[in-house]
Amino acid sequence: MLLVSTALTDLKQRLAEVYDLQRTLGVLRWDQQTMMPPQGAAARAEAAATLTGIVHERFVSEETGRLLEQVAPLELEYDSDDASLIRVTRREWEKERRVPTQLRADWAREAGNAHIAWLEAREANDFSVFLPAFQRVHEVALRWAEYMEQGDSPYDPFLDEYEPGMKTAEVKAVFDVLRPELTAIVREAGEPADASFLQGDFAIATQQEFLAGVMHDFGFEEGTYRLDPTVHPFAIWFSGGDIRMTTRYRPDNLQALWSTMHEAGHGLSFRGIDPLLRRSPLDGLPSMALAESQSRTWENLVGRSLPFWRGRYPELQRRFPQLQNVGLEAWYRGINNVDPGLIRVDADEVTYSLHIILRFELEQELVAGTLDPAGLPEAWNARMHELLGVEVPDDVRGVLQDVHWTRAGYGYFPTYALGNVLSVQIWRAVAQDLPELEAQLEAGEFGPLYDALRERLYRHGAKFTPMETLDRAIGADAIDPQPYLEYLREKIGGLKVV
Amino acid sequence: MLLVSTALTDLKQRLAEVYDLQRTLGVLRWDQQTMMPPQGAAARAEAAATLTGIVHERFVSEETGRLLEQVAPLELEYDSDDASLIRVTRREWEKERRVPTQLRADWAREAGNAHIAWLEAREANDFSVFLPAFQRVHEVALRWAEYMEQGDSPYDPFLDEYEPGMKTAEVKAVFDVLRPELTAIVREAGEPADASFLQGDFAIATQQEFLAGVMHDFGFEEGTYRLDPTVHPFAIWFSGGDIRMTTRYRPDNLQALWSTMHEAGHGLSFRGIDPLLRRSPLDGLPSMALAESQSRTWENLVGRSLPFWRGRYPELQRRFPQLQNVGLEAWYRGINNVDPGLIRVDADEVTYSLHIILRFELEQELVAGTLDPAGLPEAWNARMHELLGVEVPDDVRGVLQDVHWTRAGYGYFPTYALGNVLSVQIWRAVAQDLPELEAQLEAGEFGPLYDALRERLYRHGAKFTPMETLDRAIGADAIDPQPYLEYLREKIGGLKVV
Repeated sequence: MLLVSTALTDLKQRLAEVYDLQRTLGVLRWDQQTMMPPQGAAARAEAAATLTGIVHERFVSEETGRLLEQVAPLELEYDSDDASLIRVTRREWEKERRVPTQLRADWAREAGNAHIAWLEAREANDFSVFLPAFQRVHEVALRWAEYMEQGDSPYDPFLDEYEPGMKTAEVKAVFDVLRPELTAIVREAGEPADASFLQGDFAIATQQEFLAGVMHDFGFEEGTYRLDPTVHPFAIWFSGGDIRMTTRYRPDNLQALWSTMHEAGHGLSFRGIDPLLRRSPLDGLPSMALAESQSRTWENLVGRSLPFWRGRYPELQRRFPQLQNVGLEAWYRGINNVDPGLIRVDADEVTYSLHIILRFELEQELVAGTLDPAGLPEAWNARMHELLGVEVPDDVRGVLQDVHWTRAGYGYFPTYALGNVLSVQIWRAVAQDLPELEAQLEAGEFGPLYDALRERLYRHGAKFTPMETLDRAIGADAIDPQPYLEYLREKIGGLKVV
Repeated sequence: MLLVSTALTDLKQRLAEVYDLQRTLGVLRWDQQTMMPPQGAAARAEAAATLTGIVHERFVSEETGRLLEQVAPLELEYDSDDASLIRVTRREWEKERRVPTQLRADWAREAGNAHIAWLEAREANDFSVFLPAFQRVHEVALRWAEYMEQGDSPYDPFLDEYEPGMKTAEVKAVFDVLRPELTAIVREAGEPADASFLQGDFAIATQQEFLAGVMHDFGFEEGTYRLDPTVHPFAIWFSGGDIRMTTRYRPDNLQALWSTMHEAGHGLSFRGIDPLLRRSPLDGLPSMALAESQSRTWENLVGRSLPFWRGRYPELQRRFPQLQNVGLEAWYRGINNVDPGLIRVDADEVTYSLHIILRFELEQELVAGTLDPAGLPEAWNARMHELLGVEVPDDVRGVLQDVHWTRAGYGYFPTYALGNVLSVQIWRAVAQDLPELEAQLEAGEFGPLYDALRERLYRHGAKFTPMETLDRAIGADAIDPQPYLEYLREKIGGLKVV
């Protein structure tokens, strides 16, 4: 047993080093998207490619495999940290070692170059500026998929990157329920209420002051986090004491409030991971859908709720006097308007998932080869008309709006809609623990909600599969769209202007 | 020859990857000192240690040695890029492979921890808070030195890290000239002129606006650089298009003007390196003394010169109306006052080198073991009295003022004074190329000066040894303190208030 226990120590050390390098890649990415001068992009793409290759090489090495073999005889409780570490590592190692290191590095490099091209294309408002770089990263992604275990759908390997173990057919089954129901809710919602007060003059510095209060009340302590502007908001963490959220401020609307609460939701779930899991592959969430369920929880179930604004609206009115003539009810109606639009990140809770279904469908076609990258703008625009009834005026407000395809990150988008679904499933269970939840949200006391979510969900980190985690969190064994649809019907029905 | 040329390509690729990882370490460091929330420090120290170990391991590998052997038969011009790459790499490889990888990683980790302790000690204004972490990093440094080639002085290996090939005795020879001469200049300078106008209310935003103009005129283009606040200013670059300078603003004085021009000088010399040398070990300067010669050039020979301020002082007066009653001559006198003080980075051109001599002497004693780390504050304070005639009131204004010892970076400090000396040696040569230099400085036209320095010095990068570089730049084969002393005597003599 001495050998076995030494092997476990060695394995942990090795994984801690891989973790360090992955976090370092995260620092490169955070810096690139918040701080880096634009002319630094080409060198940054090289650096990220080199480091990506090294991370891959070290992780998939024979030495990792040898250590995994040596620890196999250990008899450990399934739920223990060590057993989970070994289980999760073995799955990832067996998957990742199929991929040549060079391919991983190429993917990172082409993603970096495509990110540069995407920024240029947005500047020029022209997809064709992005196309050549996109085609290159797209082809690397397809080459990568050939090394993966083939599933029922060519989309399965991509989905598995973000949603371990989930099949395309399972996503389709959920989306097949959502698509007609959401379309019906949009139709039945009728004319949107007046929300013109959401456009206007909103000084960014004042938005920041308001948000600083929200972040504080959500539980973020000084010296443990940052919130910075970026083009495409994201959240990342380098330790429990170094959580980086990013957001996008606009001087003429208040979208930053919700995009910030969204990223704060990510930040809180990173923060709630058991400290004993830090500096290991378990220091994360088990899937993107579970991660997104929490960003959407804090953005929508908290940040678009009536109790939250009952407590906080007076402060917002004080900071933005033009809202003095807008009552709480009108405000609440306005921020929850169902109003099909062009931009995913600005979408309401109902149409948001339709934006996702569009991307999910296009991605499957791209991966299957039935849609050529060059045909993407046309397909996008047609699908927007079909699903949301809107006409896309240009590429920036269409196919160029999201960053994800700069890394051919297919499989990521559907997790947003699954996150919406899961957020309500989990919220219902958590609400049972907290009989005073509404009053707490109104009072700006978010500690009990955070503690309940941490206890049920966050603390597990990535110890279990997504479905095992859901089971431990709320005793459910599948993603169920019904609570989400019920929540929307009830909320949107109640908002209807009669 | 096919094998040899393939080996050269492979060697370059390998070195490019090592370069990428070193730049990535730079990103970690830049982020740590400008952006990172304080609570992220412990994890950052681990990440930097892991990456440092990997950089070392990859560079010193047998594979690098094998490639170096394979390219040995190549017949190349001494001055060619390829010959230089091979020569510089071989020297560095033979030196670096003596060091165990674990020791390099330990050094990085202990340096990270000591940096945290240093910040805490500064907060507490108490050296004893820093001492335990300092002792640990000090011991790692001494262990490292045991692996190095032993020179005449135990300080030689440390010096060689920053000043390749230079011996402690050579530095001593220069400093033995400087010490009495500088002390005499201080004595003869007499009472400092009134410079009370340098203290007062100087809005940081206004300083930043003024400096933005300076940076622009120095030649920095939008989208290729950053200038951020930090505790201990430094400059670093990740590519020719991503140069990061940092500075320290104070709302009650204008020291940031010179600390920014200092870092801008570093930035300009990074910028001037031949683009063909990028992403290779030659993308740097051959020694810290040559690097510092250029930061001091732009800080002092430009930024404290009469022509510079003749052109720029009206703008400064416009931005800070309290200077309206201070004439150009009084201003020039004030910013060049010889006035022994406590803080190195705030020191005038004469006493600055005395601050360095103090550190050089203490470092030699630390390394020789004749001074214990615990005895540092007492030794510091005594030496400050002896060399500069000032009493040190507390640790923050004494032994805790510099960041360098957090990484036991002995050998770095002397390069600042050598840089002062070299700056004037090089300036004299460059001034011969530029008969209109004074008029250009007054007109804010810095392009000709930059071009001349790039042509003589910057473009060579790290292709040659420091002395080979000096020879190519100005036809000199040694560091000569006389021009520096002449420059000071002339300048300070001219300033004397009669």
